[in-house]
Amino acid sequence: MQALVLEKAKELNLRDIEIQEQLGPHDVRIKLHTVGVCGSDVHYYETGRIGPFVVEEPMVLGHEAAGMVIEVGDQVKNLKPGDRVCMEPGIPDPNSRATRLGKYHLDPAVRFWATPPIHGVLRPEVVHPAAFTFKLPDNVSYAEGAMVEPLAVGMHSANKAQIKPGDVAVVMGAGTIGMLTVLAALAGGCGQVIVTDVVQPKLDLAATLGPVTPVNVREQNLKEVVDRMTEGWGVDIVFEASGNEKAAASVFDILAPAGCVVYIGMPQDPIAYDIVAAQVKEARVEHVFRYAHVYPKALSLMGGGRLDVKPLITDKYTFAQSVEAFEFASHMPPTSVKVQIEMPH
Amino acid sequence: MQALVLEKAKELNLRDIEIQEQLGPHDVRIKLHTVGVCGSDVHYYETGRIGPFVVEEPMVLGHEAAGMVIEVGDQVKNLKPGDRVCMEPGIPDPNSRATRLGKYHLDPAVRFWATPPIHGVLRPEVVHPAAFTFKLPDNVSYAEGAMVEPLAVGMHSANKAQIKPGDVAVVMGAGTIGMLTVLAALAGGCGQVIVTDVVQPKLDLAATLGPVTPVNVREQNLKEVVDRMTEGWGVDIVFEASGNEKAAASVFDILAPAGCVVYIGMPQDPIAYDIVAAQVKEARVEHVFRYAHVYPKALSLMGGGRLDVKPLITDKYTFAQSVEAFEFASHMPPTSVKVQIEMPH
Amino acid sequence: MQALVLEKAKELNLRDIEIQEQLGPHDVRIKLHTVGVCGSDVHYYETGRIGPFVVEEPMVLGHEAAGMVIEVGDQVKNLKPGDRVCMEPGIPDPNSRATRLGKYHLDPAVRFWATPPIHGVLRPEVVHPAAFTFKLPDNVSYAEGAMVEPLAVGMHSANKAQIKPGDVAVVMGAGTIGMLTVLAALAGGCGQVIVTDVVQPKLDLAATLGPVTPVNVREQNLKEVVDRMTEGWGVDIVFEASGNEKAAASVFDILAPAGCVVYIGMPQDPIAYDIVAAQVKEARVEHVFRYAHVYPKALSLMGGGRLDVKPLITDKYTFAQSVEAFEFASHMPPTSVKVQIEMPH
Amino acid sequence: MQALVLEKAKELNLRDIEIQEQLGPHDVRIKLHTVGVCGSDVHYYETGRIGPFVVEEPMVLGHEAAGMVIEVGDQVKNLKPGDRVCMEPGIPDPNSRATRLGKYHLDPAVRFWATPPIHGVLRPEVVHPAAFTFKLPDNVSYAEGAMVEPLAVGMHSANKAQIKPGDVAVVMGAGTIGMLTVLAALAGGCGQVIVTDVVQPKLDLAATLGPVTPVNVREQNLKEVVDRMTEGWGVDIVFEASGNEKAAASVFDILAPAGCVVYIGMPQDPIAYDIVAAQVKEARVEHVFRYAHVYPKALSLMGGGRLDVKPLITDKYTFAQSVEAFEFASHMPPTSVKVQIEMPH
Repeated sequence: MQALVLEKAKELNLRDIEIQEQLGPHDVRIKLHTVGVCGSDVHYYETGRIGPFVVEEPMVLGHEAAGMVIEVGDQVKNLKPGDRVCMEPGIPDPNSRATRLGKYHLDPAVRFWATPPIHGVLRPEVVHPAAFTFKLPDNVSYAEGAMVEPLAVGMHSANKAQIKPGDVAVVMGAGTIGMLTVLAALAGGCGQVIVTDVVQPKLDLAATLGPVTPVNVREQNLKEVVDRMTEGWGVDIVFEASGNEKAAASVFDILAPAGCVVYIGMPQDPIAYDIVAAQVKEARVEHVFRYAHVYPKALSLMGGGRLDVKPLITDKYTFAQSVEAFEFASHMPPTSVKVQIEMPH
Repeated sequence: MQALVLEKAKELNLRDIEIQEQLGPHDVRIKLHTVGVCGSDVHYYETGRIGPFVVEEPMVLGHEAAGMVIEVGDQVKNLKPGDRVCMEPGIPDPNSRATRLGKYHLDPAVRFWATPPIHGVLRPEVVHPAAFTFKLPDNVSYAEGAMVEPLAVGMHSANKAQIKPGDVAVVMGAGTIGMLTVLAALAGGCGQVIVTDVVQPKLDLAATLGPVTPVNVREQNLKEVVDRMTEGWGVDIVFEASGNEKAAASVFDILAPAGCVVYIGMPQDPIAYDIVAAQVKEARVEHVFRYAHVYPKALSLMGGGRLDVKPLITDKYTFAQSVEAFEFASHMPPTSVKVQIEMPH
Repeated sequence: MQALVLEKAKELNLRDIEIQEQLGPHDVRIKLHTVGVCGSDVHYYETGRIGPFVVEEPMVLGHEAAGMVIEVGDQVKNLKPGDRVCMEPGIPDPNSRATRLGKYHLDPAVRFWATPPIHGVLRPEVVHPAAFTFKLPDNVSYAEGAMVEPLAVGMHSANKAQIKPGDVAVVMGAGTIGMLTVLAALAGGCGQVIVTDVVQPKLDLAATLGPVTPVNVREQNLKEVVDRMTEGWGVDIVFEASGNEKAAASVFDILAPAGCVVYIGMPQDPIAYDIVAAQVKEARVEHVFRYAHVYPKALSLMGGGRLDVKPLITDKYTFAQSVEAFEFASHMPPTSVKVQIEMPH
Repeated sequence: MQALVLEKAKELNLRDIEIQEQLGPHDVRIKLHTVGVCGSDVHYYETGRIGPFVVEEPMVLGHEAAGMVIEVGDQVKNLKPGDRVCMEPGIPDPNSRATRLGKYHLDPAVRFWATPPIHGVLRPEVVHPAAFTFKLPDNVSYAEGAMVEPLAVGMHSANKAQIKPGDVAVVMGAGTIGMLTVLAALAGGCGQVIVTDVVQPKLDLAATLGPVTPVNVREQNLKEVVDRMTEGWGVDIVFEASGNEKAAASVFDILAPAGCVVYIGMPQDPIAYDIVAAQVKEARVEHVFRYAHVYPKALSLMGGGRLDVKPLITDKYTFAQSVEAFEFASHMPPTSVKVQIEMPH
């Protein structure tokens, strides 16, 4: 089959590759329709590695995907050919302790699309476990379906925060994950969200997503905005999605007593963490690693119209233009958020 | 001052009454603007009592209120004359064990407006603790402010449920509290809500409140609807707001494994509760009694536009028409939800 | 192999039976050492059925078991021949939604020892998944190991209660599960436990298990005891382990505001449940069905000496005396709690 | 009255001082019996300050106290003269937002004994709110009662951890708070506790407190001990009670997936916090500041014999020897834990 293959760092080809996949009794075969380009895909393209994961053999990219079921295994009951679906890209080892506890995303043996040596899905078809394949509501498009993967991180972050209806939150960082966290936080019960960044076009877009107050921390004092909006009490939740060490270290300044911090961004280095500042407020600090169990929840919110990802799908390419799409994504203007590739159908 | 006084069951007068109130250092004086008519007000009017609470002396009615601050005590810092506010009608004993635990609504010594022998607020002015008085956002009207009290029950119910973003819920009963629970459940993170009743006009109105599926249980099989919408898994949450014994006993049929039931309605008699049915699903069952700590949260959601109570304010009267308003509320058509009385201003 | 076979109701034989079991890569083969007799075993023996589960073909009894690993599958890393172990008797379907959520005990497809048509373990050997086989600490005997299964229900109940260190609890019912719940509640953080029953010898034994106040509800007023011990506030937790409809209906009388009820016992019929009584206290009500994830926790407490089940192992039989053991268990005196059968070794 | 007065840093006198205290309707007057010496008392003695709190006028020391009620206010119902009691030393502002939420310990306006300018209780009598005065069980001595205050920090830490029965915990640091956290963790449900320090006599004492594994981190590798005890999975909870920056930064190495860290110790400087290490395990991190609502819980555990503080009361002085007691506490040998002063009675 023809696929978008990363040969090694900086060398990307749309070419034939042989991938052997057998349809097991609990599996479905899916014809891909739309695949989003993720920052991690771009990173592999640019450098050939992410941390300990190194591209040592040609690997198909892409893990944000939606498509149509074309074949189902013997034991599959909840899906049938013709169903429009999106897929969770990580498949855990069913025998691991983490999986048994329901924390399958923490299983170190997870096989994740487009993470070496596992092929991604910028290709015509894929075989996938039915348990990790989710039917799209009729009013959710393939393009929106392919957004569920990055949204899942925001959804999982909202879960971790244990939002109480009407909470006020800060989301630090208006990148793709920050934007999707804003959407998840609002859909998940926040009454107001303050979003911070230093790139004005990103803040401008974020401000259109709902009751969102943008704060350009180059020009505005975040603590003053928070104090004004909360009568000096602080925000209930801080979602740190910038990955910036300084931002990550500053979260307790703006937090309410007994508030919650969720670390989503992954700073390169350890941060200067002020335990006493966290103690005075008895902060609860949660940490997010991928996600689990949130796909059906995201689809419920999207199907009901409580969460709309469409404003974040800014750029579209055809499969034939895949290499070009990655070139674009690799030098993306600040007004772009999500690049998607539409497969032939 | 002139007030709407319930002399005894069925005898209601708009007349002068003397009410002595001193402004303490932590109090504010409020000029009332809008007061909603609650089912409990109507019940006192019709029967002179609710359970152990008996109207033995003339009592002013009304406890769903919004108004303007006109005077503040020495120690009040968060409010000033001119502020538009709504008020929590129950004031706990600060020395009770429940209050100290932050569960002030469970303090049996709570003094609650329009619950004998405490006067309500269908009168020009009231003195109230600043701590239980909340500033309205600029874009929230007095009429909406007066809706926060009944909404607070829905908000508290949503808190109890510990909604995860994207949960699917059933709200049993499309009365005022049921409707407000629908709004709170959606604003609090539910992706879809199924609402049940036997009165079609109420269901028709409920269906306009968002991603709401109305089920007339006279004509439709609730379990079938739930199974279709959840692939046979069941709903994550059942909010029982009908107070109907049969409905309250049926909650486990439609619940997902590890789901949550919130009992809001107050059935007259004990219900037939099937412990084994609850055990097979390991249901968590929560019970709601009034509310606590939710006023600022409700206002955050309303100010941000994530929760809109306006469709439920169906009928308006002037203070001079108060007795007529109660007559109407006492025989309310199914298309009406909330009757409000606007004070002279 | 020779096994204790229930041919049909009331007919029990120690005889040869062929059981085919293949050792898979994630399995271990265990030589049984001690097997406890559970009330459910006795019930199958007496009546041939429990609810929908009917003994239609000869079935080996026994599911409370400890033994020694004698062979391990290819992929097994945490166990080796010679390890002393106890086993969780229920094996879930790894592909079920409940299992994936970490709630494997709620999977309706669980295969459970000695639940028709699955054979139990009153036999020399069994093959079992390593993931559901747990190493005994050196200072925990096989006999104690075989108690982990019934204890697991108490442990799971203690988990559900979310005990805060120092909580005061009532355990209703001093049967085997009640006693084990007392132990789990104390080990799990309760400071004091009140235990109720009508059978004095059971109460006398329960009173030796720690800071336990026995209340014979035939002779004493439970509410008075609770009020005296809690200054009228009520207990933090009620564990209902009697399965008695009247007891189960009375839980809210003695509960503290914001307290928790855990229904463990399974009353035959629905109970008269007073929603308003539960609302006034905003009770949280949890329901227990079997258990999950608690075996290693129970062993940790037993190994550390924080929980001692030995006083509850009251009667011992050899495998050759198995039928006699069931006869005894079927007419057990009130001073007996747990009958165990020791296998030849 | 005669009291132990800190005139300024390093100047301590047992002398007369006038303290005006009026008995309000909700207060009790207590004759002090035993007062423990806390590290903070010693710190004020040695340096005249702790952070922003500076001793600017003579101040009576002591806040770990037990005594006998000798007079009660009009409205006091739960106490009477002759009652043996211990007292919570911090009194919050009833009008603060934190107090109303039940988080009174986070109220910045808390008035705390022996924190400038509030006098402590190394004096014959004190007037105190009944709500913060707790009756000792008959089998709990005054000396044990005076231990409830430091124990409360351990109890609150155990609450924050949300211990599941049988959890395995590490307590870093075997100082007074570390030791009391060990006791609270075990009483609160932990099955096994590993305690670390570099001072061997402290570890030797800790090892006598229950199923406690001491690890001298000068000589042993903590991670190896944890891996051996948990089959490489990690511990469920790390209580950081050393206040050491390096220890506080190392907590994630030994933590299980989805485990919890509780920061109790207060490092002088920010620590190097590795967010990614916390993310890979999705750690929950809690922070402790003083305590709330735990006095009755601690007394329940002590009265029931589930928690025994007596081994930690190592040194006793009379009130007349108070200055000498502080001299000793200021240069305490590693075999000493708690110094107490017994008042004349």
